[in-house]
Amino acid sequence: MIICKVVKPLVSTNRIPDFEHKHLQVVLDGSTQKVAVDAVGCIPGDWVICVGSSAAREAAGSKSYPSDLTIVGIIDHWDPEAAKVLASNAAPASAAATANGGKA
Amino acid sequence: MIICKVVKPLVSTNRIPDFEHKHLQVVLDGSTQKVAVDAVGCIPGDWVICVGSSAAREAAGSKSYPSDLTIVGIIDHWDPEAAKVLASNAAPASAAATANGGKA
Amino acid sequence: MIICKVVKPLVSTNRIPDFEHKHLQVVLDGSTQKVAVDAVGCIPGDWVICVGSSAAREAAGSKSYPSDLTIVGIIDHWDPEAAKVLASNAAPASAAATANGGKA
Amino acid sequence: MIICKVVKPLVSTNRIPDFEHKHLQVVLDGSTQKVAVDAVGCIPGDWVICVGSSAAREAAGSKSYPSDLTIVGIIDHWDPEAAKVLASNAAPASAAATANGGKA
Amino acid sequence: MIICKVVKPLVSTNRIPDFEHKHLQVVLDGSTQKVAVDAVGCIPGDWVICVGSSAAREAAGSKSYPSDLTIVGIIDHWDPEAAKVLASNAAPASAAATANGGKA
Repeated sequence: MIICKVVKPLVSTNRIPDFEHKHLQVVLDGSTQKVAVDAVGCIPGDWVICVGSSAAREAAGSKSYPSDLTIVGIIDHWDPEAAKVLASNAAPASAAATANGGKA
Repeated sequence: MIICKVVKPLVSTNRIPDFEHKHLQVVLDGSTQKVAVDAVGCIPGDWVICVGSSAAREAAGSKSYPSDLTIVGIIDHWDPEAAKVLASNAAPASAAATANGGKA
Repeated sequence: MIICKVVKPLVSTNRIPDFEHKHLQVVLDGSTQKVAVDAVGCIPGDWVICVGSSAAREAAGSKSYPSDLTIVGIIDHWDPEAAKVLASNAAPASAAATANGGKA
Repeated sequence: MIICKVVKPLVSTNRIPDFEHKHLQVVLDGSTQKVAVDAVGCIPGDWVICVGSSAAREAAGSKSYPSDLTIVGIIDHWDPEAAKVLASNAAPASAAATANGGKA
Repeated sequence: MIICKVVKPLVSTNRIPDFEHKHLQVVLDGSTQKVAVDAVGCIPGDWVICVGSSAAREAAGSKSYPSDLTIVGIIDHWDPEAAKVLASNAAPASAAATANGGKA
């Protein structure tokens, strides 16, 4: 699951019927904006857990719901600054390529 | 789901029969061009919501349709400039590696 | 679906029996080389549409075929230079992080 | 599967009922923080194997559990420094684009 | 499917029972280390084809095996240097963002 910040609701009048009337939220995944189905009732500014892959369908309510990103929980306390410090101190396995690039 | 801009229809005469006659659109995901099955009837220039993963199949019409990216909605209003400002101000959890690299 | 260029056939004598005798092609996805199952009969130099995720299995012929990338169509006309110009002019939502990094 | 380091448990009081009471852990994938369902009982500092995609659901206990990242094993010995040296010496197929960017 | 180089076997004593006694290998995907289930019997130094997504489960032996990356074939001959030259000469559609970043 990824940690995202809720930005705002997304309005899409012309959409497939399978989406029903569930709320769509624009969320920030790092600096990329994505769209997630809201299964918990969150508001802009909330830090949330989003599930992707095929699990996003069941999390949105049913196996046939066409979501690939669903908000499944609101994080009680999240400090993005602490997260950044942690990330810059740690440079495990998969960070190697990025780290080398950064030395250019 | 990801937010894409529709570029133009894609013509592929030699394709597998399972694709039937559904329209394919070239869409821009950031600066990467991808191909999506059009389930809503959009035109070049539209900002759209694209669903991926296994949900793209059902969104395209049936569980056995071989799509991994389907256009499921047209966004009523989208301001890409506002999106960029927002993204550069916010630097949450998963942006840390990119941000460090940018300071090199 | 992603747009790839066919590089060459890939020979793998020691492989799992489930792969049967279908042709494998090395394809370029941007500058990354991947391996795709060929469901249309393409040749090196062709620009093709590749489907991933669970849809790659059905596109390769059956639900139990172990592919995660299948070539499903040959693009009639593709101009990679035009694609690059387009991509550098447009900088929508999800390109923001990359764009910031590029200014370093 | 990816190799991650366990950071700390994540508390999310307001979450969908399907998540039950399983433990959620913040894990570092490179320098990106993600959330994983803990199926083995790990503690902060452990290096673990996380499985994603649809396999994450069964790994979490049942086919309908809505996880897209599940901790499935604790690595007996892992040396992240050795991993970085290895990664910088080797520059196989898919590293080409990153390597070129690093020379800028 | 992705092209990886086998690094070494991975030992994880504390793992979920569903993993059984199948061999796990650390593989290099570009410069990122991942873990793959070995379905062909490979040794360190081999260049292999790895399948991901839901296809990794069936490739590992059964639909319920919790793998998201399975080694499905050993490549007869692979020249990583030739691959790099090829990648730097070609800059198709999805490489545009990376190429711009490289000019910084």
